[in-house]
Amino acid sequence: MAGGDDLKLLGMWASPFVLRVKLALSLKGLSYEYVEEDLGNKSELLLSSNPVHKSVPVLFHNGKPVCESSVIVQYIDEAFAGAGPSLLPSDPYERAIARFWVAYIDNKMLAAWTQASRAKTEEERAEGMKQSVAAVETLEGALRDCAKGKPFFGGDSVGYVDVVLGGLLGWVRAHEELKGVSSFDPERTPLLAAWAERFWSLEAVEPVMPDVSRLVEFGKMLQARQAAAAAGDGN
Amino acid sequence: MAGGDDLKLLGMWASPFVLRVKLALSLKGLSYEYVEEDLGNKSELLLSSNPVHKSVPVLFHNGKPVCESSVIVQYIDEAFAGAGPSLLPSDPYERAIARFWVAYIDNKMLAAWTQASRAKTEEERAEGMKQSVAAVETLEGALRDCAKGKPFFGGDSVGYVDVVLGGLLGWVRAHEELKGVSSFDPERTPLLAAWAERFWSLEAVEPVMPDVSRLVEFGKMLQARQAAAAAGDGN
Repeated sequence: MAGGDDLKLLGMWASPFVLRVKLALSLKGLSYEYVEEDLGNKSELLLSSNPVHKSVPVLFHNGKPVCESSVIVQYIDEAFAGAGPSLLPSDPYERAIARFWVAYIDNKMLAAWTQASRAKTEEERAEGMKQSVAAVETLEGALRDCAKGKPFFGGDSVGYVDVVLGGLLGWVRAHEELKGVSSFDPERTPLLAAWAERFWSLEAVEPVMPDVSRLVEFGKMLQARQAAAAAGDGN
Repeated sequence: MAGGDDLKLLGMWASPFVLRVKLALSLKGLSYEYVEEDLGNKSELLLSSNPVHKSVPVLFHNGKPVCESSVIVQYIDEAFAGAGPSLLPSDPYERAIARFWVAYIDNKMLAAWTQASRAKTEEERAEGMKQSVAAVETLEGALRDCAKGKPFFGGDSVGYVDVVLGGLLGWVRAHEELKGVSSFDPERTPLLAAWAERFWSLEAVEPVMPDVSRLVEFGKMLQARQAAAAAGDGN
């Protein structure tokens, strides 16, 4: 890190979007101050630095805020081009392919997961599940085609797509424990299942990943709250 | 354009997303072959070059396809860095700000517009309208803060956000004629209203913009089709 650079991350431990930023910072070997945000009682710093979304993550670089996880990951890669490995490829065409898949993960795969988990009817849930399976299978194809036998979406080392997808891995594992089904099923999507193991065990990744049992407890609490709200008791 | 570069755009005349790509190519002064796609009978070229979304735009650069309008605009800017003005700022922080607002336009403003126009109930429509107004007002603030008295989101010349928002302007005007209300109301959002006039009349923009009366006719046809589908006659 260049002398005098000051990095502060406003986050929330269970957020997959915050995890993306932690992963990018760790992979680039950048040190930073981490501030845990109470999303039930948002700080003035959060409200003033991200007035549009009022959500984490927010990364402050020398006091200037950057918001939106995929924007932050690109920012880290560009502002600290000299630190650690490049997350985005140098070739414009390969960069476009990486951005395409990041958009796919956020707009299609996550949207399907959200629909499946927040469905109000069985029909909506079934449709969300169907779209989730299709989205993950499409991503399996992307891994096959992008990586071309190499270990990561980024090729020999992790890149932008790995970081963005990797941020979701804590919840993928927690979901396995909560629901007994794996989003990255070793039978149906063997490349993604192997990728997940490989990514998680990286030296720059493992220490940053959340405690899955804690996520499971948090997930149970969210489910209970959701069920109580659906039952109309207003909690 | 570098010698030997071959650009082909697969598009559909009424698509605001295709328009973004046309705008970027025009602003960069790049010549290209345009191929109109029949979305009712998609070509093999479209299906094979964008198998994930099966949608336009697709830009072929020396035969290699790039998909997703915001990804394509960035690609054009990066692959043809020497041609025409830069659409993205050179400073990483300013690039992050531009990417933040592009994500806002696509994920919040467009989502609200879509909800308002495709609502199945009056309640859904009212909520979509409310969110649309709020999103456009937020964007008015962005224009005030980003441009700081300069004419465009990009400052003195148009940039990434201008191109992405500018792609929607044909439909903003058609919507005015169809519904009698302006999304960029001169009273409520004077900066955006003035920006829209200024952007549209640019030398590199005006020839690329769609014929609004043709969009109005197309919009009426879509509305009639939607109404017929809602009435259950299956068309």
